[in-house]
Amino acid sequence: MSGPSSTSVPTASASREVFRHLALQMAALDGFMQAQVASFEPEIRDMAAYCLESTGKRLRPALVFISGWKGEGVVEDPLVRAAGVLEMVHLATLVHDDIMDAADLRRNRGTAARQFGPDAAVLLGDALFSQALHIAAHFPTTEVCRLVSESTRKVCSGEIMQTLHRRDMSVTREDYYRVIDLKTAELFRAACFLGARLAGFGPEFVQAANDFGRHLGIAYQIYDDLVDCLGEEKNIGKTLGTDLASGKLTLPLMLLLEKLSTDERAAVIAAMQTGQPLPLAASVEQMRTLGIAADVAQAVEAELALARGVLEAHRDLAPVPLMLQLIDLLKAQLAALHGSCAKP
Amino acid sequence: MSGPSSTSVPTASASREVFRHLALQMAALDGFMQAQVASFEPEIRDMAAYCLESTGKRLRPALVFISGWKGEGVVEDPLVRAAGVLEMVHLATLVHDDIMDAADLRRNRGTAARQFGPDAAVLLGDALFSQALHIAAHFPTTEVCRLVSESTRKVCSGEIMQTLHRRDMSVTREDYYRVIDLKTAELFRAACFLGARLAGFGPEFVQAANDFGRHLGIAYQIYDDLVDCLGEEKNIGKTLGTDLASGKLTLPLMLLLEKLSTDERAAVIAAMQTGQPLPLAASVEQMRTLGIAADVAQAVEAELALARGVLEAHRDLAPVPLMLQLIDLLKAQLAALHGSCAKP
Repeated sequence: MSGPSSTSVPTASASREVFRHLALQMAALDGFMQAQVASFEPEIRDMAAYCLESTGKRLRPALVFISGWKGEGVVEDPLVRAAGVLEMVHLATLVHDDIMDAADLRRNRGTAARQFGPDAAVLLGDALFSQALHIAAHFPTTEVCRLVSESTRKVCSGEIMQTLHRRDMSVTREDYYRVIDLKTAELFRAACFLGARLAGFGPEFVQAANDFGRHLGIAYQIYDDLVDCLGEEKNIGKTLGTDLASGKLTLPLMLLLEKLSTDERAAVIAAMQTGQPLPLAASVEQMRTLGIAADVAQAVEAELALARGVLEAHRDLAPVPLMLQLIDLLKAQLAALHGSCAKP
Repeated sequence: MSGPSSTSVPTASASREVFRHLALQMAALDGFMQAQVASFEPEIRDMAAYCLESTGKRLRPALVFISGWKGEGVVEDPLVRAAGVLEMVHLATLVHDDIMDAADLRRNRGTAARQFGPDAAVLLGDALFSQALHIAAHFPTTEVCRLVSESTRKVCSGEIMQTLHRRDMSVTREDYYRVIDLKTAELFRAACFLGARLAGFGPEFVQAANDFGRHLGIAYQIYDDLVDCLGEEKNIGKTLGTDLASGKLTLPLMLLLEKLSTDERAAVIAAMQTGQPLPLAASVEQMRTLGIAADVAQAVEAELALARGVLEAHRDLAPVPLMLQLIDLLKAQLAALHGSCAKP
C-alpha cells in the first residue's frame, strides 16, 4: 500500500467516512429495491431480483441522499424513491452494456446476459427501465418522470456516440467530454438535482447541486478512465486497459498518443484499431514515464475545483460538508492512484 | 384472389374503410413524429429519424384515434401525443426484436441493427423508449406516464417469457394466452383506454374501450400467428412459418401437434427443437387437411365476440361504429386467409 505523495490530501480511507453517514438511507434503499421485485410479473421476478440484488457502489443513490441531506437519522421517503429510480436506470444500462461488451462477469458474478442469454437480457434491461420510470411516475407531479426520462435518453445517446466512435482515431478532446457529460455526468447531475429539490432546498442551492453533480460526474469518469489504463493500485502490472483493447479513445489514451514518438504512436493506433493487445509493461510504463497520470489528474482536479466552486455560496447548508467530502474522496483516490504510479 | 367462403362477412377491402376516416389524425401523427426527431441529441438525430420514419401499420395510433373518436375532422392534440407515445414504444420494441431475431429487413428496408450495428441498436431502442416516456411525462398529470411505463414493462415481460419458452414443447395453451396478453394485447388495451380517456368519455366507456382493446389484441395476435403459419394469401406455398423455424409454439402449431399422428408429431417437434425446416408442402398441407385454420379462426372469433360484447351498452357513442368496423375488418381478413386455405 502506498499513500498519496502530497500529504495535504486526505487519505481515501478517511474520506470514505462520508458513506458511513448514509447507512440508514442505504438500508432504506435496500428495502425499497427488494420490495420492487414484487412489481414485476411473477414469471420474471427471479430475473429482476438477480439484477436488483447488485452489490454495486450505489454512487447515484449516495448523491441523492447527500444533496438532500437534512442531518443524521433523517430518512425521507421521496429521496429513497428517487435514489431507487436512478439506481434502477443505472442497473438497466449495465445489463445492456454487458450484452454489448459480451461480458461474463460483473462484480464477481455472472452478468444477466450470461445468466439468462443475451436476448432475455435485452428485454430484461427494458423491463428495468420501464419499472424505473413507473416508480418515477408515482411522484405527485410529472417533474421526476420528465427529468429521469430525459436523463435516460441522454445517457443512451452518449453511449451511442461512444459506440460509433470505437476505433475512430479522429475523436477529439471535445468529443470525449461531450460523451462523458452525457453517459456519466448526466445521471450524477440528475441525482444531485433531485436530492436537493425533493428535500425542499431553495432554487439557488438546487441549481448549485445540479452543477456540482455534473462536474463531479465528469471528474469521476476521467478518473475511472485513468483507472482503466493503470489498473487499481493492487492490480498495476496486471490490467492492460479494457478501453484500449476495445478501441475506446479516452482522455488518458489521447494524452498518451500526443506524447509518443511517431513510431510508438503508430504501434498504439494499430493495436487499438485491430484490438490486439499492446505489450503490457510498455503501456503502463509509458503512462508513467511520460507523466500522463499527472496530466489526467490535472483534468480531474480542474472539474473538482469547479464542483467546489459552485458550493461556495451555500457553505451553511447541511449537504455541503458532505458534498465537499465527496470531492476530497475522489481527490484522495486519484492521489493514491497517481502517487503509486509516480513511484519508481 | 379468393374471397371468404361465408358471404355474411364483409370483405377486407370494404372494411379497410375504417382507416380512411383517420387520414387527418394520421397526418397529424406524422407531423408529431417528425418533430420528435429534434428532441434527440444532434449526434443521433439521423438514427432516430430512421426509426421513426417507419411505414408500419400504425395499429396502436389507430386504436387511440378510434377509441377517442369525436367525429370526422376532429383532431385532438392529446390523442395525437398519446398515439405518438405508443407508436414510439412499439417502434422501440421492434428495434430490439430485430436484434434478437438477427433480422436484416423490416418493411423492405434495413433494420436498425443492420444499419447501425447491434450495439448501437440496443442503445437506440433504449433512447426511443426514454423519449416515449418523456413525451408521456408532458401530460398534465402522471397518469399517462404511469400507464405507459407499466404497459411497456408488461410487453417486455411477455417477450421475455416467449424467449424463455423457445423450443420448449411443454408450453400450454394457458402459457400462450398469457404471453400474447402481455406482449400484444397490453399495448392495444392501453391505446384504447387512453383514446377514450383523453377524449373525455365517461368511466364506463373507458373501461369498455380498455376491455375491447385487450380482446382485439388477443384476437389480432392469434390471427397473426396463423398468418405466420400459412403465409399471406399471395404467399401460400412460399413461407414456411418463422415461428416454427424459431421454435415458438403458437396456437396454430399447438393445434397442429394435437392432431398429428405420433410419428408426424415427433417429426415436427424434432424440426422445431433443432430449427431444421420441415418439408414445406407437408406443413401447409397438414394445416389445411386437418382443419387447423378453422379451429384457429374459432379462437379468434371467440375473442372478437367478447370485444363486441363489451361495446353493447355503448352503441350510441361516436367511437363504437368504428370499433365494430375494426372487428369486422379482422374477421374479413381472417375469412380471406381461412377461405383461401380451405380451397382445394
